[in-house]
Amino acid sequence: MSGTLYGIGVGPGDPELLTLKALRLIEQAEVVAYPCLPGAESFARSVVAAVIPAEAREIAIEVPMTSAREPAQAAYDAGAARIGAELEAERDVVCLCEGDPLFYGSFMYLHARLASRFEVVVVPGVTSLTACAAAAGRPLVARNEALTVLPGPLSDEEMRRRLEGAETVAIMKVGRHLPRLRALLAGEGLADKAVYVERATLGVERVCPLGAAPDEAPYFSMVLVTKGADPWL
Amino acid sequence: MSGTLYGIGVGPGDPELLTLKALRLIEQAEVVAYPCLPGAESFARSVVAAVIPAEAREIAIEVPMTSAREPAQAAYDAGAARIGAELEAERDVVCLCEGDPLFYGSFMYLHARLASRFEVVVVPGVTSLTACAAAAGRPLVARNEALTVLPGPLSDEEMRRRLEGAETVAIMKVGRHLPRLRALLAGEGLADKAVYVERATLGVERVCPLGAAPDEAPYFSMVLVTKGADPWL
Repeated sequence: MSGTLYGIGVGPGDPELLTLKALRLIEQAEVVAYPCLPGAESFARSVVAAVIPAEAREIAIEVPMTSAREPAQAAYDAGAARIGAELEAERDVVCLCEGDPLFYGSFMYLHARLASRFEVVVVPGVTSLTACAAAAGRPLVARNEALTVLPGPLSDEEMRRRLEGAETVAIMKVGRHLPRLRALLAGEGLADKAVYVERATLGVERVCPLGAAPDEAPYFSMVLVTKGADPWL
Repeated sequence: MSGTLYGIGVGPGDPELLTLKALRLIEQAEVVAYPCLPGAESFARSVVAAVIPAEAREIAIEVPMTSAREPAQAAYDAGAARIGAELEAERDVVCLCEGDPLFYGSFMYLHARLASRFEVVVVPGVTSLTACAAAAGRPLVARNEALTVLPGPLSDEEMRRRLEGAETVAIMKVGRHLPRLRALLAGEGLADKAVYVERATLGVERVCPLGAAPDEAPYFSMVLVTKGADPWL
């Protein structure tokens, strides 16, 4: 009888966008884990800090920010080993994830290391995708429309290829790629359909046409290219 | 000082996947609205039935199931008029939406009719997209991968065109299109990467390889075509 690993989506940032299930599991947690940058606070942890039990043991998995593969692998190996030891000792572990655990989440690296040996339950969360659409007041997709989600770091060539024939497009992880993406979308004739959303659901949320967006975008920013407020009905 | 219209995502079906914000707004509601089929229970209402105040007034917007445009338009016109009257009388209205209001949701038709005259706040919810990924235990996207969401009713030609060059694909609204989609995905060599998920987060949830899926799929079903459990790390 090992413990269960819960991968919990804590939503896009507003603590009120936590689900009841996530709240219950975190409030009951004996062990709470989360990836973070070395020495930095975990964003996912900060969202739910008020409800983590004072007596819970915490496992901070410090993942170095590097393009090299090995240091990150070693960090997840070590984190999975610590989580595995708790599970073997019949304690459940709650792993906190920004947004949703399986939508651009690092939880999948723990899942890949532990799911064959332990019970893993994923609790879905509100993604930044729909949080940004809500902040912008723009429908993402209706009826038989397709939605394409693209990461901002894609090359210009790759981005153009994927924009071609797409309908609604959400570009995630915009950050420092904003000036390049703005020029690219303008070149494709999509500038007037693009909205920039920064820190959706956080206190400092910002929504504006892409043309009015700042040159320096934070990591938590997105560009939505929608067909606009012209639904079928 | 008119009232505010809240478009509230109630999540994919498990009442515990409601957000704290949605719960607060529903528990405080004076007026609760929801679209439904004529004479049928609203799925969104059923998810949160236990927390709707007994004294709340309810506006059921009966939308006929038809491919003709006018009857549905008339239903949303009438529903928007009833909601507008409440808002003008300085009462807030909470509109219940399956999943997320702006992700294949009918809330956008009320939004389009009312947002120019009244304050509209959209509360994002957990989508069936990530709920199905959680049920299947399959990561949707990581790092610089793209996600494509396609509606099942797309024609074979359109579906093939959009599958080409896509990475992770989620096919929503599978329903009666399942046998056709299964044959199409097999023809594209994607059969062994496809998982079928039915009624995710509901008590009767079902997950299986697409090849083992039933010929008759309910409306609440999805096919996920993922690159499998082989993440970078």
